[in-house]
Parts: sequence; structure tokens; C-alpha cells
Amino acid sequence: MDFGFYLPTKILFGRGKISEVGLHAKELGRRALIVTGKSSAKKTGNLEKLVRSLGENGIEWILFDKVKYNPFTTDIDEGGAFAKENKVDLVIGLGGGTAMDTAKGIAFAALNDGPMADYMEGKSGEKALPIILIPTTAGTGSEANNIAVMTNPYTMAKKGFRNPSIFARVSIVDPELMDSMPPKITASTGIDAFFHALESYISLRSNPLTESISLKAMELISESIKKAIYEPDKESRDKMALASTMAGISLGQAGVCALHAMEHPLSSYFNAHHGEGLAPLAEAFLNFVKPYVFEKLAKVAEVMKIDTANLSKEQAAEKTIDAIVGMIKDLGLPESISTFGVKKEDIQKLASNVKDYMAHNLSATPGNLTFEDILKIYEESM
Amino acid sequence: MDFGFYLPTKILFGRGKISEVGLHAKELGRRALIVTGKSSAKKTGNLEKLVRSLGENGIEWILFDKVKYNPFTTDIDEGGAFAKENKVDLVIGLGGGTAMDTAKGIAFAALNDGPMADYMEGKSGEKALPIILIPTTAGTGSEANNIAVMTNPYTMAKKGFRNPSIFARVSIVDPELMDSMPPKITASTGIDAFFHALESYISLRSNPLTESISLKAMELISESIKKAIYEPDKESRDKMALASTMAGISLGQAGVCALHAMEHPLSSYFNAHHGEGLAPLAEAFLNFVKPYVFEKLAKVAEVMKIDTANLSKEQAAEKTIDAIVGMIKDLGLPESISTFGVKKEDIQKLASNVKDYMAHNLSATPGNLTFEDILKIYEESM
Repeated sequence: MDFGFYLPTKILFGRGKISEVGLHAKELGRRALIVTGKSSAKKTGNLEKLVRSLGENGIEWILFDKVKYNPFTTDIDEGGAFAKENKVDLVIGLGGGTAMDTAKGIAFAALNDGPMADYMEGKSGEKALPIILIPTTAGTGSEANNIAVMTNPYTMAKKGFRNPSIFARVSIVDPELMDSMPPKITASTGIDAFFHALESYISLRSNPLTESISLKAMELISESIKKAIYEPDKESRDKMALASTMAGISLGQAGVCALHAMEHPLSSYFNAHHGEGLAPLAEAFLNFVKPYVFEKLAKVAEVMKIDTANLSKEQAAEKTIDAIVGMIKDLGLPESISTFGVKKEDIQKLASNVKDYMAHNLSATPGNLTFEDILKIYEESM
Repeated sequence: MDFGFYLPTKILFGRGKISEVGLHAKELGRRALIVTGKSSAKKTGNLEKLVRSLGENGIEWILFDKVKYNPFTTDIDEGGAFAKENKVDLVIGLGGGTAMDTAKGIAFAALNDGPMADYMEGKSGEKALPIILIPTTAGTGSEANNIAVMTNPYTMAKKGFRNPSIFARVSIVDPELMDSMPPKITASTGIDAFFHALESYISLRSNPLTESISLKAMELISESIKKAIYEPDKESRDKMALASTMAGISLGQAGVCALHAMEHPLSSYFNAHHGEGLAPLAEAFLNFVKPYVFEKLAKVAEVMKIDTANLSKEQAAEKTIDAIVGMIKDLGLPESISTFGVKKEDIQKLASNVKDYMAHNLSATPGNLTFEDILKIYEESM
């Protein structure tokens, strides 16, 4: 056993916590760039809550609302230039994973010269503006790690940029901000959180500390995701919010596996919503890893409250896979990658993209999967 | 649900990791004060490993080896003055909880004027020298939180000083350094870690994130503590080391309860070893909280692998208490507080000390315990 654990973010969890953001912001800067999407934070009133608290604490702010789903590194460059021009000293990301990851990228780009794409390819940089993150979906967990996912438009590599400087200083996880999430987004972001927890749990880089967090996240999601979608109440929203943050911690420490790796080109080439892209790949992926991690999958059965009395661990693992596939169906998520327009002839290109750009996640995947295994999982997910 | 989670320490876990300490130290300073006990770190060779790595990385060092068990705030003042005189810019604590807590206190005292006792009583101070902690026992978990336990000699209040500045920047948890721990210390520190996990689990300040960590810590301890004492091998040492750090995280975030509170005056007045002091109080304490937390205690039965088939949760909770009492017996820990010289007539004084100085821990304890409850727990522990 040999691992590191590092999470310097102050996480504040609770309904109404957004009203405290200004207090924390004034410890970090005087002029904030708010990074958010074009409309939803405005419609829901979440942006108003944020700027009210900033105003009460004398923080100036300026809005960057050009966040795009599946952002390109060039979008980040643009945001970084905007941050420099406007002389902000703090970046606040408000929204789902895209808004938070864009905020992280901009905070980094503002203090490091040259295109973001170079840093994605390994150019070193150590500084970023201080960051505050405020999730409004329960899915990405970006508030609890130092990863910002973006796509290099020159290579179409969608991957996570990792840097110690882009941990949020403060993350405010206020489930009230998620109350207005529509069912479709609750489902697609919720399943993303579930797979962060599951993949970090079976990751070859996991350890008992991250495993305990991952398991609890799966327990919370499996007991509350349906309710949060179909009859949302405070309890189900709270549990989903917490589970997403917990899964984000584990993901940051232990990494995710081939399932996430294989979704990325569905997003970069077919603009699939990340959570929706994960769903149809899950069954074939889980069947691939099952022989290597059946004991862990049997443990997942326990937290999902699946009856496994008198079953062997192998059989319990199968029940877990069945339950996950059933959950995807129940939530109305896509069951085939052809939903996104993927055709059989595209699979080679998708698999090459995974092989070329997602080596880090592949190496965390139990079972040493080969290029042929990747092709097969895509084929089985058609 | 409303909570904060903050742990800015970089935790590095693994056998042989101490050889990397110099690399981290040189990011933080040039001249280190090593805080350790008079003899054990020297005898075991652990001090030599530390100074070798510092030397390889060009870090000067100076030794403060006057660490006393159950340190007074005045001992910390002395260490702080020594740190100032010697112009160190980094403090490294090597040893058990006492050495690490003394190191934390000294790092704080070096940058804040006036006696430490004043800060214990609420005087504010925000700065400390950067700290590296290296545990050589598996018990206190001090490497994973911002608490330093010390005793005010004027009031005999033994309590935890908490300050954000005394989180270690880096903690190196290297189970190899614990291989030489004698059985008695393995037992008394191990049971301390177990109760950090248990008390933080039932604490009124717990949350699902800390609970998941606490439960896993109890699981690891219950499956490895006997082995680590009677036939230590790498696996049992590794598990105890990890569990202790995990319990230290939960303790820092969720706090401990009345059991810890009631042990403290046994240490300050009777110089009991902290872990040994906890043992005889456990049964009466657990019987007191049982009605309020029987569901949680039933969950502890699961991780302790206690057979609870066909039992109600109340009955399972009783089984958990029996198992813990049995574990204390098996480990050869004291079963009565009279072991430390406590007489019936001392109990009033002990209980008053708890009431006067441990309000924070009492308020985290389920069941609103009264002064009479405290007296009764001490009496039942004679």
C-alpha cells in the first residue's frame, strides 16, 4: 500500500451556505470573475444569490458567461485573456462541471502564458488565481479535486488537466442550488457521480481511504437518485449533492478507469452529454472488468442493498451489474451509443482516440485491457 | 446536514516514505527543528532515517528532544523560545502523539507571543511555522488534523488546542517506523485510534463523509490489532497505521465525545497513558450512549464482523459493546481506573474537571449527559 492523499479545499456543505460565499471571497481577493453558463444560473436565481453575498462583502465582480458544454482549450485561452484584461484576482465558478472546469482552467490560464493546449500536453505551470467553486448540479464533483476536463480542438483529445494550483480554495456545496435541476440533468449528472464512485472504487490506484468514501457515495446515490429525479425532496437532493462531492474526492485521489476514458471521445466527436455517454457503455465495461474485481463488485451489492443471500461473490457481482444496468434503464438514460449518431465505422476512430489520449485512465483499469477489448466494448454498446 | 470538511495536509502513506521527507522539507524551509522524545526515535533508528534524508536535501536541523508525555503548555512555551533562539523556519515532529502535538504547539508558539496557556483559553493567533509530522505509533492520528493536546498546569485542564495554522503541511505515514513498537504501546495507541473512530462516528458533529472514514478505520483496526500486538507483520502494521490516520481525519472533522473528555483528567491528575485511560471507561460510556446510537452501534457490529443474524438493532448494539469490552481484555489493557491510583473520593474532582474544561466534547456526545451521568460512568469504571 503506497499512496498520497491531498485535498486542500475547504468544503462547506449545507442548504443556504451560498450566503456565506462573500465572507470567504474577501479572504482571497477583491475583484472576482464569475464563470457561469449563459442562462441557467440567471433563470434559477443562483447567480443573484451569489452576487448578493459578494456585494454584501464589498467584492467587485465581472461576469464571464460564455461557458460552453465540452469546452475547448481555446475557450479557456479566451477566458484567461478576459481575466487578465479585467484584472481580476479571484475566479468563482458557478454551475455544473463545465462551468467549474472552465473556471479552473481560466484561473490557471490567467497566470500562465501561452495556449492551454500546451499545458495539457505537459508544459509545466504552477500558479493559478484563487478559485471558489459552487456546484449547481450533483454530478461532476469538480469542486473536490484538481482536475479540469477540456478538449484540445487540434487533436480532439478530451481529457482532464490536473494541476495542484487548481484545487478550489473554498467549495460551497449548497443543495438548495440544485433544487431547480430538471429531471434529465439530475439523471445524467447523477449517473456520472455514480460512475466516479464506482470507477475510483475499482481503480488500481484506490486505497482503503478512498474506497470507503467511494462506497458511501454509491450507497447514497443508489438510495436517492430515483427520488431526486421523479419526486425530488430536500433529503434526496442533499444526499445526491453530498455523494457527488464525495465521489469527486475519490476520483481526484484514485482516478477513474476505462469507462470514463471511453466516454470522452463520445463527447468530443459526438458532443454527447458526459453522463449520457457513460450509460450505454457501462454494461460491456463492467462485464469486462468483472473477473478482476468481482469481490469489489460484490461489496457494491451490499451498499446498493441488493439481496445476495446464498450467492457466491461472482454471482453477487453479476447482480450488481444487473442492478446498475436496471438503474440506467429506470433513469431513462441512453442504452446504446447509436443514440449519439455513432455508427459501426466510427468505432475504430473512437478506440484510437482512447488509446492515444487516455493512457492514464487505461492504466488504472483492472484487467490490462487491449485495443481489441476497447473495440469490443464499443461494439457491444451499439 | 450542514458541515465543513478541511484537511490541507498532504498525506503520504507507504513503507520507506520517510526517505522522501527531505524533498518535501526543502519546499518549506532550510533549517528545521526536529521535535522528538529523548530516546525511542534514536534507539529505533527512525531519527537517523529522518536526518539522512534532510542531509541529502541540504536541510540544516537542530534537535529538541525534551518531549514529555502529557506535555504542559509551559513545555510548549519553552520549545517555542528554543525555536526562536535557533532561528528555525520549519518544525518536524517525529514520534507518537505527544511528539507530534508538541511539534504543533512549538510551531505555533514560535510565531505568537505570550504564554501558550492564553491561546488555550481563547486568545487569537493565526500563524505557525510550517510543520511536517511523522508518526511512529499508530494511534493518535495527530498527523491528520489541527489539534494539539496539552495540559495547562495552572488549571490542570488537558485539552485539545485547535488552530488552522497547525495542520501539518506534509505528513509522512511510514508503517516501517512502527515495526519496532513494543506490544504494550501497540495496544494502548491502537485502542486510542479505535475510539477516535468510534467516537467520531457517533459524534453529533459527524456526517456521512466522516462516518464512512470512521467505519473503515474500525474495520481495519478490529481485523488487525491483535495480530499487530501478538504476531506483528507488515500487513497488520500497515492496516493499523492507515486506520490511525483515517481515524485522525474523522476526529479532526467530527470531534470525539465524552469518553475522550473523561480520559483527559486521568492523564492530567494520574498521568495515565491516554489509550490505557480510555479502556476502563469504555463499557460504562457505551452503555450510557447505547439508547441514543444503537443503530450506529449495530453498524459497527457489521464492520467488526460480529454475527448479528436474527438480532434486533438494540441487541446487535449490545453485541458490539461486548466485543469492544472483550477486545480491551484481549489486549491486556486496564479494566479499572483504580489501576491509575484513582480512589472513590477522587471522582468528584475528575468529573468537575470534565465539566469545566471539556464542554466541547460533551456537547458532541449523544444523550445530553449530566454531571451525575459523568460521576456514574466514573463509578462504574472503578
